[in-house]
Amino acid sequence: MAGAKEHMRASIAAFGTEIAPASLEGVQRLFDAEQRALANAVPAAATDLAYGADPRHRLDLYAPVNASAPAPVFVWVHGGGFLRGDKGDAERWPNAHAGRFAARAGFLGVVINYRLAPAHGWPAGGEDVGAAVAWLKANAAHYGGDPDRIVLAGTSAGAAHVATWLQLRPQSHGVRGAVLLSGLYGVAPYDDVRDLSYYGEDPSLHAERAPLETVVDTNLPLFVACSEFDPPRFQAEFLGLLSRRFECHGRLPRSYVGSGHNHFSLAYHLGTSDRRLGDEITAFVREVCTLG
Amino acid sequence: MAGAKEHMRASIAAFGTEIAPASLEGVQRLFDAEQRALANAVPAAATDLAYGADPRHRLDLYAPVNASAPAPVFVWVHGGGFLRGDKGDAERWPNAHAGRFAARAGFLGVVINYRLAPAHGWPAGGEDVGAAVAWLKANAAHYGGDPDRIVLAGTSAGAAHVATWLQLRPQSHGVRGAVLLSGLYGVAPYDDVRDLSYYGEDPSLHAERAPLETVVDTNLPLFVACSEFDPPRFQAEFLGLLSRRFECHGRLPRSYVGSGHNHFSLAYHLGTSDRRLGDEITAFVREVCTLG
Repeated sequence: MAGAKEHMRASIAAFGTEIAPASLEGVQRLFDAEQRALANAVPAAATDLAYGADPRHRLDLYAPVNASAPAPVFVWVHGGGFLRGDKGDAERWPNAHAGRFAARAGFLGVVINYRLAPAHGWPAGGEDVGAAVAWLKANAAHYGGDPDRIVLAGTSAGAAHVATWLQLRPQSHGVRGAVLLSGLYGVAPYDDVRDLSYYGEDPSLHAERAPLETVVDTNLPLFVACSEFDPPRFQAEFLGLLSRRFECHGRLPRSYVGSGHNHFSLAYHLGTSDRRLGDEITAFVREVCTLG
Repeated sequence: MAGAKEHMRASIAAFGTEIAPASLEGVQRLFDAEQRALANAVPAAATDLAYGADPRHRLDLYAPVNASAPAPVFVWVHGGGFLRGDKGDAERWPNAHAGRFAARAGFLGVVINYRLAPAHGWPAGGEDVGAAVAWLKANAAHYGGDPDRIVLAGTSAGAAHVATWLQLRPQSHGVRGAVLLSGLYGVAPYDDVRDLSYYGEDPSLHAERAPLETVVDTNLPLFVACSEFDPPRFQAEFLGLLSRRFECHGRLPRSYVGSGHNHFSLAYHLGTSDRRLGDEITAFVREVCTLG
């Protein structure tokens, strides 16, 4: 087991720290067998449910496994540089895997698509997260979820969209907690973001569009993570957010650095036998959903 | 299992974040049954070996379990505010537990005592870590350890002493890596340290005595951790060290925030069924001991 783990770490380290298609494909290949097995074990309860008018306003549901009472609702917001990404389906496990991971943990797993740049700029992603929350408030109970116990989770651009939803509705976001994996919050200027069609080319707009102050200030419970092999840009966002939170609240939020993982594997290994991050997230969701 | 974990988290959270005798005693009580079982399973291979002239220059050895080749050597440096602390023995598990944890992971576990303030001020603790390393270079092989694969690990004041040894011998410390748990490195001035008999009452001495610049600059592999319920002072040291490392190296070192743990439990739970931190440390030791 230790040998297998060390081999996985070495394989992921070999992809380097850059955001590159070869790294994404390599990571997905590494987890393919385990994620296909999970896909077979946890089928979707409902797919392509419309939570808005746009063709991208679609979500899939994974029903809580072995849960009797109304279950916490875990909403997964995929990454993809604001430009791409998909919730997956029965055949394509990426992102669908996070819904299955949540279902197996006893939650109602929700995996959403959202509108993409360049057609849809800021704050479309954040608005869509909010629209999905509204839809779940009305419909989660029908699928075994508790509409009063929703936790948002996003990776990379998805973490930014979760943060933007909190920014749009700081007092009425309707959720119990947020899981932010390897996100961009605006700690550093957006100048070096490869494609600025989401935040806009005009740098004077960026400060007010960045969700940083919201995720620094909010009293919503946060789980903040990055990975050991994340690009420096994303580690800087993680450190900057933790430092600002510490200044503001005098304490660290729940925080995690995924050792042996990179920007892609941190998200895509959820549901595999490497349960370290998954167990931390599960414990966080359970805790924030039993409070109050 | 999840229920037991959540109960443990709640019990530790209830001790608060302060460094208080009641928290230390409470934490030790929580782990007492598991640590006594570990003590029964992994007896010391040798105790009270002298690595120097002072009565505090004593160390205990725990032989690697199920290891054939010469094993990595894991040296545990206890905490205690520079003023107190003890390596433990067959009857008293605190600190001895870390040697047993290491032995069970296949390492030669070493638990040292070192000279204490106020009788012995800076850099006595760092010198003693170095004296223990020198003793192990000469003697570890006799007990199944590889003198060329030594990893230092310290908690609280012990982490400071490990850092001070690196500061005293930045080029010839003789070790493969360092595990720094909830340490003080000098990110913030020492003004608020309760007892300054170790670093000295004269604040003008503190900057040169602080090991911060060394642990920022060093290319030695580091594993840096703090806990979710550490006092803010220690979380600030963790964040400050990570931020300075990031500025200097452009990357995070291996980093870990022990969720559900406080300043005491982060160290004292090693060897129990909560293997999260222990597994990370074990993987780090294996990795740095197979390099080069």
